[in-house]
Amino acid sequence: MIIDCHGHYTTAPGQLGDYREAQKAALAADPEHVGAKGTISIGDDEIRESLERAQLRLQQERGTDLTLFSPRASWMGHHIGNIHTSRFWTEHCNELIRRVCDLYPQNFAPVCQLPQSPGAPIEPSVHELRRCVDEMGFVGANVNPDPSGGYWDGPPLADRYWYPLYEALCELNVPAMVHVSAACNPQFHTTGSHYLGADTTAFMQLLSSDVFADFPELRVVIPHGGGAVPYHWGRFRGLAQDMGKPALDELLLGNVFFDTCVYHQAGIDCLLAVIPADNVLFASEMIGAVRGVDPETGHHYDDTRRYIDAARLGDAERTKIFETNARRVYPRLEGVAA
Amino acid sequence: MIIDCHGHYTTAPGQLGDYREAQKAALAADPEHVGAKGTISIGDDEIRESLERAQLRLQQERGTDLTLFSPRASWMGHHIGNIHTSRFWTEHCNELIRRVCDLYPQNFAPVCQLPQSPGAPIEPSVHELRRCVDEMGFVGANVNPDPSGGYWDGPPLADRYWYPLYEALCELNVPAMVHVSAACNPQFHTTGSHYLGADTTAFMQLLSSDVFADFPELRVVIPHGGGAVPYHWGRFRGLAQDMGKPALDELLLGNVFFDTCVYHQAGIDCLLAVIPADNVLFASEMIGAVRGVDPETGHHYDDTRRYIDAARLGDAERTKIFETNARRVYPRLEGVAA
Repeated sequence: MIIDCHGHYTTAPGQLGDYREAQKAALAADPEHVGAKGTISIGDDEIRESLERAQLRLQQERGTDLTLFSPRASWMGHHIGNIHTSRFWTEHCNELIRRVCDLYPQNFAPVCQLPQSPGAPIEPSVHELRRCVDEMGFVGANVNPDPSGGYWDGPPLADRYWYPLYEALCELNVPAMVHVSAACNPQFHTTGSHYLGADTTAFMQLLSSDVFADFPELRVVIPHGGGAVPYHWGRFRGLAQDMGKPALDELLLGNVFFDTCVYHQAGIDCLLAVIPADNVLFASEMIGAVRGVDPETGHHYDDTRRYIDAARLGDAERTKIFETNARRVYPRLEGVAA
Repeated sequence: MIIDCHGHYTTAPGQLGDYREAQKAALAADPEHVGAKGTISIGDDEIRESLERAQLRLQQERGTDLTLFSPRASWMGHHIGNIHTSRFWTEHCNELIRRVCDLYPQNFAPVCQLPQSPGAPIEPSVHELRRCVDEMGFVGANVNPDPSGGYWDGPPLADRYWYPLYEALCELNVPAMVHVSAACNPQFHTTGSHYLGADTTAFMQLLSSDVFADFPELRVVIPHGGGAVPYHWGRFRGLAQDMGKPALDELLLGNVFFDTCVYHQAGIDCLLAVIPADNVLFASEMIGAVRGVDPETGHHYDDTRRYIDAARLGDAERTKIFETNARRVYPRLEGVAA
């Protein structure tokens, strides 16, 4: 079985976007706009249609089985509006993911976004996490380390601001994938630099903090192959050493995992050369940042299974990367996927 | 001959730091403080002492010959004070580099920092660049894409704000190394995440812009092995393709170069697997971000010559990386190093 730990609902029916545009219009008239959650009317057939020629077809073509599926990351847009905006939007997005997983329980397992908002307390995010996991069977959560959308003016992941969320993640036994949303800062390209920079930034914050000493059970997945981290593994090993920290495997590798959203063979080979197989989770993020076909291979850039298949790995390591690591990091999968 | 294209004067005599502390003290009393350039009294013997047991010893031990030497990057601190602060500090730092190169013309060639300052015009930087190149024989410049120190609130590299600087770089025939300074934003670790994130961000800005169409002769070196770029080369190839841009080699590789400041073999192997040898410049950034000895190899992490020596390269490629690319990218080296 092949579990893809990183997929977003990038093909959701248009009504979802319409709802968001209405939110933005109300905020343009009044930035303090509260409004109400309201409803989004999407039929089951529309959900099926949005997936069957897209993610489901690609699962079949690529021979992957189950995708950990969360709302579209670039649309989380935590910087938009206020805490109410983010709450209503997030609840709708998560509920839509639940419906997807109800329709295709063999193909998708639900991962939630959180109603973060710049300058807002973390407690509403804890509340939504509990609702998603306890009441709706979610198996993980995406946590945005920079809800400002590229201005980086909030508290780093080492800050105690985040501790109630870490407590809840541990108690509920679900991991966090650290994943920013769209950049609203013109310095950053959302998928080209903001995502990768945030991955690296989050890793370094965790490396230099006491988060895992305080939460030894906390599990964090760094997406996009860990940003720049595996490529610069020697740099990070050396920085930890200069700080008098233990070796990285002792310091972090009980808690930090990297996905395989690296869209060429040489990058995947680098990832697998430096990160132990126990800490690598298969992922493609399809249909996501890069949608084309690589003229060098004739296959989609994000068909990452091919790179793992072609990598120099033993069968035991490949099984870990394709399935058993995901089951260990996301233990609540046990309840939803055999 | 082996040219190290990336070294900073991290071991400068204490008087330099004393001058900076006096600047900061004056600014603490009055943020608008102008003051005067003043003098920094450092003897030639103090300069010699600061280098002979440090960079010069390591050059000899590691068998490298010439270092392109610039002021300490983390001390550029463009976010500190105002345009006057930055001007006086930059002039002193550059003049000290000139003295180093006068004392050791076989070992060091000068690269300048610029008097950037958040919100300030670019013209003073153009002026200092001209002073350094025309009057003091400098061969390159470090350009900080984020003088705010991690708040990223200035214009991206695609913005016409930068064009007078690009014009001067082309006219003077010197390259820019894109290099941020210390982060004052607690979200970022200077050498662990800010440097690498800035490298990736700058590359993506150049990829998605018209800078090289407007300045076909402009040459930009992305340090630290290009941040996350080579590791994610497939992602960047795919993003360019999705944008309808030409292939990256056509789009950028006439203008963009990557250094080898990647502190482990697997990372260097990834760099060399994806970036053509014509676009890779040897560099170590010693004595810099990572100062320890790697217990896995018994050698310094930043002894990057060993990784290049061990890489699968032909002699012609290795010669390009060690010497001839640097001479092509920094043509003014001809006047200072035979």
